[in-house]
Amino acid sequence: MQVTRRRGSEAKGARDAVAVEEPLEIRVAWTSASGSRIVEPLAVTMRTPGDDFELVAGFLYGEGVVSRAEDLAELTYCRGDEAQKYNIVEARLGPGVTFEVETVRRNFYTTSSCGVCGKASLEAVEAHGCSGVPDGPVVAADVLASLPDRLLEEQRVFERTGGLHAAGLFGADASRGGVKEDVGRHNAVDKVIGQALLGRLLPASDAILVVSGRASFELVQKSVRAGVPILVAVGAPSSLAVDMSRRFNQTLVGFARDGGFNIYCGEERVG
Amino acid sequence: MQVTRRRGSEAKGARDAVAVEEPLEIRVAWTSASGSRIVEPLAVTMRTPGDDFELVAGFLYGEGVVSRAEDLAELTYCRGDEAQKYNIVEARLGPGVTFEVETVRRNFYTTSSCGVCGKASLEAVEAHGCSGVPDGPVVAADVLASLPDRLLEEQRVFERTGGLHAAGLFGADASRGGVKEDVGRHNAVDKVIGQALLGRLLPASDAILVVSGRASFELVQKSVRAGVPILVAVGAPSSLAVDMSRRFNQTLVGFARDGGFNIYCGEERVG
Repeated sequence: MQVTRRRGSEAKGARDAVAVEEPLEIRVAWTSASGSRIVEPLAVTMRTPGDDFELVAGFLYGEGVVSRAEDLAELTYCRGDEAQKYNIVEARLGPGVTFEVETVRRNFYTTSSCGVCGKASLEAVEAHGCSGVPDGPVVAADVLASLPDRLLEEQRVFERTGGLHAAGLFGADASRGGVKEDVGRHNAVDKVIGQALLGRLLPASDAILVVSGRASFELVQKSVRAGVPILVAVGAPSSLAVDMSRRFNQTLVGFARDGGFNIYCGEERVG
Repeated sequence: MQVTRRRGSEAKGARDAVAVEEPLEIRVAWTSASGSRIVEPLAVTMRTPGDDFELVAGFLYGEGVVSRAEDLAELTYCRGDEAQKYNIVEARLGPGVTFEVETVRRNFYTTSSCGVCGKASLEAVEAHGCSGVPDGPVVAADVLASLPDRLLEEQRVFERTGGLHAAGLFGADASRGGVKEDVGRHNAVDKVIGQALLGRLLPASDAILVVSGRASFELVQKSVRAGVPILVAVGAPSSLAVDMSRRFNQTLVGFARDGGFNIYCGEERVG
């Protein structure tokens, strides 16, 4: 993209790479009790194209629509509208998976980072059907400290655009699980969790989730839902993120940069 | 908050300030055509407490529920639940303001930064009833370059917690309009626009909106809706943010830091 760089009175034309952001409509298809086939648009997310099926799988998992890979019979792009060819994904639910679109829609809530949506109840501030992550594993501090750099190494786009978030799953032995990027940090987490879901790797009870930005309440919620025992954020956590992480027996690490980090809760997992 | 700081094998206890994040439920009260009084919960946002009425005003404005200060008859905290005493705000609409809760809920859409919600249509990716911001003003480059530092000066919490976003309205002559903070950058923008709405200063057709983070599509949408001609972001814009800003005749400045910045569109307003 052509931009003008200004520094004081000096102006010069330059090329600048910007992170691509496009809408993705998520549709859910299922069979009703009476046997009729229903397709409902559920949500539109602004995302960086790529890993769309993983994103949809992770989104539906995070919202409690699906819980296992088998709950998703098929993920396809909807054709018809040529301009939006790769911007509509239909998720067909497996046999016997019940779905109540209004309930799910009502359960959406406004997050700190967006300021929109409609989860119209304070009580909704709990993870979906989850009582906490199991104890263990214990991970060496130098392993934890090394993960943000490894996330950055794997992140291909950030350096050029400065505009992308990344999320990565790593094993307790620092093995690489998967790294995804997106203009939205929540999408990046959905992609990485969706990939684990489709690979039948959830709950990820031996994994470390590393995120390039801040640790919000919602990222804690998504990681707890996926059974992740250790969440590492390069940025700061919010107070509610710490509260929720502690409540669900998780380890929350923040400001993981320059070889050091802060532990906000669950210190027993850091060796 | 008590945390453990780790650097290599060294561990020490420390106190760390974290940004406070609490849920705010937004309820809307209005009188139906048949004369009955209706109160409906509309959304829950995770926000930093403070400037809650401004936040609700800005949120309702951004969603197209209200368009003028007169459309809001009253903003009050709902009592009853002692624990959530200051976490529920009721917005009473002015006489004659119509409200269709399902329509508004349906219009919520997923943003790049959160990955939830339900604006179930790609067509929704347009600002509310707005054909573009008017031409002018022209602002000197050194004034624009100075605004991020002024935003930071006014930002009280960020330096301690590292976790808060800020948004500020400034006049074309660099006069200060208002600076607000929040754990969510979209909330910070809602607060600052809500304050301008309640002060009867909208449309802000002579103003510069400065945000401490990235310029997402949604921040462009909110600023366009408020008639703001120049949006300045300390971080990177997304591609869709640039598209939308250009479409609505706005000036979009990104990477405004260290005395320089990039102009993505609307260069004619930079002198």
